[in-house]
Amino acid sequence: MSKLPSDQNAAAALRHVAFVGAGPGDPDLLTRKAYGALLAADVVIYDRLVSGPILDLCRAEAAMISVGKEGFGPSKPQADINALLVEHGQSGLRVVRLKGGDPTVFGRLDEEIEALDAAGIGWEVVPGITAASASVAAIGQSLTKRGRNQAVRFMTAHDMQGFAEHDWHALAREGEVAAVYMGKRAARFVQGRMLMHGAAPATPVTVIENASRPDQRIISSSIVRLEADLAKAGLSGPALMFLGLAPRAAQMELQEGIAL
Amino acid sequence: MSKLPSDQNAAAALRHVAFVGAGPGDPDLLTRKAYGALLAADVVIYDRLVSGPILDLCRAEAAMISVGKEGFGPSKPQADINALLVEHGQSGLRVVRLKGGDPTVFGRLDEEIEALDAAGIGWEVVPGITAASASVAAIGQSLTKRGRNQAVRFMTAHDMQGFAEHDWHALAREGEVAAVYMGKRAARFVQGRMLMHGAAPATPVTVIENASRPDQRIISSSIVRLEADLAKAGLSGPALMFLGLAPRAAQMELQEGIAL
Repeated sequence: MSKLPSDQNAAAALRHVAFVGAGPGDPDLLTRKAYGALLAADVVIYDRLVSGPILDLCRAEAAMISVGKEGFGPSKPQADINALLVEHGQSGLRVVRLKGGDPTVFGRLDEEIEALDAAGIGWEVVPGITAASASVAAIGQSLTKRGRNQAVRFMTAHDMQGFAEHDWHALAREGEVAAVYMGKRAARFVQGRMLMHGAAPATPVTVIENASRPDQRIISSSIVRLEADLAKAGLSGPALMFLGLAPRAAQMELQEGIAL
Repeated sequence: MSKLPSDQNAAAALRHVAFVGAGPGDPDLLTRKAYGALLAADVVIYDRLVSGPILDLCRAEAAMISVGKEGFGPSKPQADINALLVEHGQSGLRVVRLKGGDPTVFGRLDEEIEALDAAGIGWEVVPGITAASASVAAIGQSLTKRGRNQAVRFMTAHDMQGFAEHDWHALAREGEVAAVYMGKRAARFVQGRMLMHGAAPATPVTVIENASRPDQRIISSSIVRLEADLAKAGLSGPALMFLGLAPRAAQMELQEGIAL
């Protein structure tokens, strides 16, 4: 067999992209599978929210391609990202599409899978620790608790048209717990909707910035104080907002010098 | 300094329990941090849902204590588990409390944290991949999708009194997505509530048994067929039920010989 067809066969066998969850930022919170995929990758196509220490795990020879996606700032159009995935996915190289958190939670995974399916390129999804999970661990609370809430919601405060509408009436009930992703700029909106639908003004709200990273901050607030507390805190990193959860006292003591 | 006080100081410094998420079962889906905690543990207090290959990672010298908790079967009362944690937590040994999935999702974490707090024993929470995340990765779908759902619910079909009530009217709406934990025996209840609240009979429901394990099974069903399909499938392992999600075609092709 000549070398060329054999190489082509190898390339055909490796027409594949791994969607890998980078987790919240701490490299120790990568799954072992995600870690293995990063160490082996020839090409890594990553979002801006992926932390530096995680990118540093990749091989020096790997092609690192930033697509700059995050909640707001500038980013490549989704169609360009899809085209990049298809281009590299058919190269025969080991391609990792690295997404912050878990790829299946507010990760716009479907658009990218559909582009690969249309091009006949295989893929797999390697789960990651989602920000809600790391954030709730940081404040020593559970997402669900017997006698308090038998359900938890992961939601975003934004949709394609602007602020997203939700069952605010249900969310405003005592004992409800929800994790609001990309909620930083929606504090006033969430505060208004919750109060309008009858939430107690003292309902706890906790914002965790840079969960699991060395610069993690915990802001313990309430519905009525939320906008003022966030303005004072001046968040700059990725943040997750919990409606209905306050940090355990011990967790607040661990945190130094947050002036609120 | 004599040896005894020094040992006592070391023991005091190690009055600590790590709540570690074992993830859904595949040892490769442990986080690197969880893996490190298991390799170092002197005592591992684990639930029945934790998979054999994960328990096998622990050191041969580690004391392995099963507390047998799972959705239904026999198990130690929670007070006994709390007492075990306090007893070992003050031993100065490296103690891991290993819970299936993520400790913060239907993990009854709070009761155990409160027992340690009351005894002045330190703790930390090491997140795990929750079953919903591994299950949705297995069917190639997202928990959230632009234009379909801006929120996803993790819920259980059971509470302390029996079947749990939820916002069935909201859950029955087109495009809603929910992950039902421990939902296997509640299929008839969920089916009834969804239909009563106006869900389309053809609303997709997918059940993933043994997510991420070698014996993983995917049952693609719908609200109206749910009870019959589950009876036919005869599930025996842990299972998660998605309301509002169907597997991608490619994922069903990967699965061999499920007769439904």
